[in-house]
Amino acid sequence: MNYDRQEILKELVQPAQTKIVLLVMDGVGDIPQDSTGTALQMAKKPNLDALAQKSDLGQTIPVLPGITPGSGPGHLSLFGYDPIKYQIGRGILEALGSNVDVGEKDVVARANFATVKDGVVVDRRAGRPSTEESAKVVAKLAEQIKKIEDVEIRFYPGKEHRFVVKFTGEDLDDQLTDADPQKDGKPIVYTEPLRPQAEKTAKIVNQLMNKIAEVLKDEPKMNFALIRGFSKYPKLPLFPEVYKLKAAAIATYPMYRGIAKLVGMEVLETGSTVEDEIKTLKENWEKYDFFYLHVKKTDSYGEDGNLQDKVHVIEEVDRFIPEILSLNPDVFVVTGDHSTPAALKSHSWHPVPFMIYSKYTRRGLSKAFDEFECARGSLGTFYAIDAMGLILAHALRLEKFGA
Amino acid sequence: MNYDRQEILKELVQPAQTKIVLLVMDGVGDIPQDSTGTALQMAKKPNLDALAQKSDLGQTIPVLPGITPGSGPGHLSLFGYDPIKYQIGRGILEALGSNVDVGEKDVVARANFATVKDGVVVDRRAGRPSTEESAKVVAKLAEQIKKIEDVEIRFYPGKEHRFVVKFTGEDLDDQLTDADPQKDGKPIVYTEPLRPQAEKTAKIVNQLMNKIAEVLKDEPKMNFALIRGFSKYPKLPLFPEVYKLKAAAIATYPMYRGIAKLVGMEVLETGSTVEDEIKTLKENWEKYDFFYLHVKKTDSYGEDGNLQDKVHVIEEVDRFIPEILSLNPDVFVVTGDHSTPAALKSHSWHPVPFMIYSKYTRRGLSKAFDEFECARGSLGTFYAIDAMGLILAHALRLEKFGA
Repeated sequence: MNYDRQEILKELVQPAQTKIVLLVMDGVGDIPQDSTGTALQMAKKPNLDALAQKSDLGQTIPVLPGITPGSGPGHLSLFGYDPIKYQIGRGILEALGSNVDVGEKDVVARANFATVKDGVVVDRRAGRPSTEESAKVVAKLAEQIKKIEDVEIRFYPGKEHRFVVKFTGEDLDDQLTDADPQKDGKPIVYTEPLRPQAEKTAKIVNQLMNKIAEVLKDEPKMNFALIRGFSKYPKLPLFPEVYKLKAAAIATYPMYRGIAKLVGMEVLETGSTVEDEIKTLKENWEKYDFFYLHVKKTDSYGEDGNLQDKVHVIEEVDRFIPEILSLNPDVFVVTGDHSTPAALKSHSWHPVPFMIYSKYTRRGLSKAFDEFECARGSLGTFYAIDAMGLILAHALRLEKFGA
Repeated sequence: MNYDRQEILKELVQPAQTKIVLLVMDGVGDIPQDSTGTALQMAKKPNLDALAQKSDLGQTIPVLPGITPGSGPGHLSLFGYDPIKYQIGRGILEALGSNVDVGEKDVVARANFATVKDGVVVDRRAGRPSTEESAKVVAKLAEQIKKIEDVEIRFYPGKEHRFVVKFTGEDLDDQLTDADPQKDGKPIVYTEPLRPQAEKTAKIVNQLMNKIAEVLKDEPKMNFALIRGFSKYPKLPLFPEVYKLKAAAIATYPMYRGIAKLVGMEVLETGSTVEDEIKTLKENWEKYDFFYLHVKKTDSYGEDGNLQDKVHVIEEVDRFIPEILSLNPDVFVVTGDHSTPAALKSHSWHPVPFMIYSKYTRRGLSKAFDEFECARGSLGTFYAIDAMGLILAHALRLEKFGA
């Protein structure tokens, strides 16, 4: 059944007054350890468990069985975008992560400061400067390089030796090779176009590299830049067009705000705590019909191997469930974008717990919200890309298919 | 999500020191009968059941729901090859099953002795000769026909009226029609090329048929041969290239050794019992990182309708589980290539029990290893083609997908 879900859903979507909340606890999925259960099992979460008894539970595969997704593919899949078809370049994600405003004609790229001597890249990370030192040199570049031919150049500082370059102009393309020898001790490498449309961009990039070398020639270490991961702004089908949803994103971390923007959600200003996000949800309740609510810390603590605090975040979220329910969402989904087991200290391939609550669930099968109840739930195991179909259905926003 | 799994996995595979054992009990899946459970349910298997409590269980679909696979597709799927895309000609499988050494330029075909009178095929099986009688006539052909034009011809005796023909030469192709009228009482049929590249081969095959008729003209019954099922050696992507695995196959029956060879495994010499196979596993443990271990008798007894002995084979395998575990495999999978219910005396379409053990399972959901626990396991129901993705993930041999 390999069809473009969005092509099909787009034909069936009908407007409605129903409201949907999609709560994504980043990396919430987990695995048991020798003497503990998963984070969801260990958490005292009376509200989520009560909700489970009235919900349909299942577990999702973000990409394919066994494949560990980054947060990008994990989220795109949940939003109904084929994560293999829409692979968002790291350049764009880094830019969005740095709050860079990227327009449709722009090309962005990741860059590293490097140390070059006699045309050889001696250190691909320029001695790992601190973020502050690096920002000063980025500022120097920004001050001295604003345009090459008819293309505007902007620089955005990042962490340590990293920064982002944005090219704005006509007829730019991102099919270019990395201007990076990949290893220390090799000569500098210029970029080459991978197709004719990228010839102009390649020319500009290579001129930029020479200009950078000129501007930085008196720097002791950060005297060059390697530029790679070129990406144009991906043209994704947008939520209002595909799903006829006026969608809002409530997320604090830049990357998730960026992904939400990519898919056509309005990114709301919010604070840094779960409580702040719930407040933002309430304040904007009337204006939207779909709310993506993102909680990051379940993933952060998972990556730290900190099961205890991952549990605490779940318990904290649980305390706000009644407030969300008091708004009377027609559909309330609780899930994650991938699993981040504390035992592995990284994202993993394990299926992701998923729970959908509405008036129309086959309630009564599940006792609580955790990986095991989800594996045995009424939804079974399904691909995350199919979540939006389910969500729209429960919101009575899909016409019948066929006669 | 209809993507070529191997194309995607190939991009994500990373080398590692981890070791994988894939134990395939041929046709192990079963169905209950009036007064008995399935073979797995009936077997006393304390080791497999203890393992199930620490493993992720699920059930696989080898091809599509409802489709009964031969061992060929069943195995290919388990090894990660799309069984519909890679349909291995019966000619090749019969050849491999007869231990025929097939090179990349060869074409093999199945042949039947037949009785012909005045150009009409009177009996497509030449009166069903015994295997011994048939072998004598095959030897006569082998002695008198060695080459046609520049193509070498070799004959390999099979069961009863069957044998295998191998053509070795330049510019051979297998896109030919069967030289077989399909029914008794019809005139003999010559082969025709299905595309230009097969013209030379068709010419050689038709000349061969005339030569065979000449050599066998004094035979009372076996005076002709029908030749069909032409196949060239299929070029499959190979285990070392796709999965970066140095894989070994420990199997006694020729067809499985053949399939393993096809996919790039090294086929190890072993004895005829399970104990012999375990010994081979131990002796070669250091040299490989993936071991395919095949037990045939579960299928054989299933095809005989002999539930009791199917149970005994499972119990025998169970006794060797601790020895396999004592080698400390990082990933240990126990499954089958298809179901062969004793009640049906043949392969069937029923999903196949699947169990994967590693440090990273969502252990604790399953109590024992049988069809019913597998239907309710943490992996749910999935396509066998996705098993390799899971296996590689548990072996920490896959990079993250996307940012």
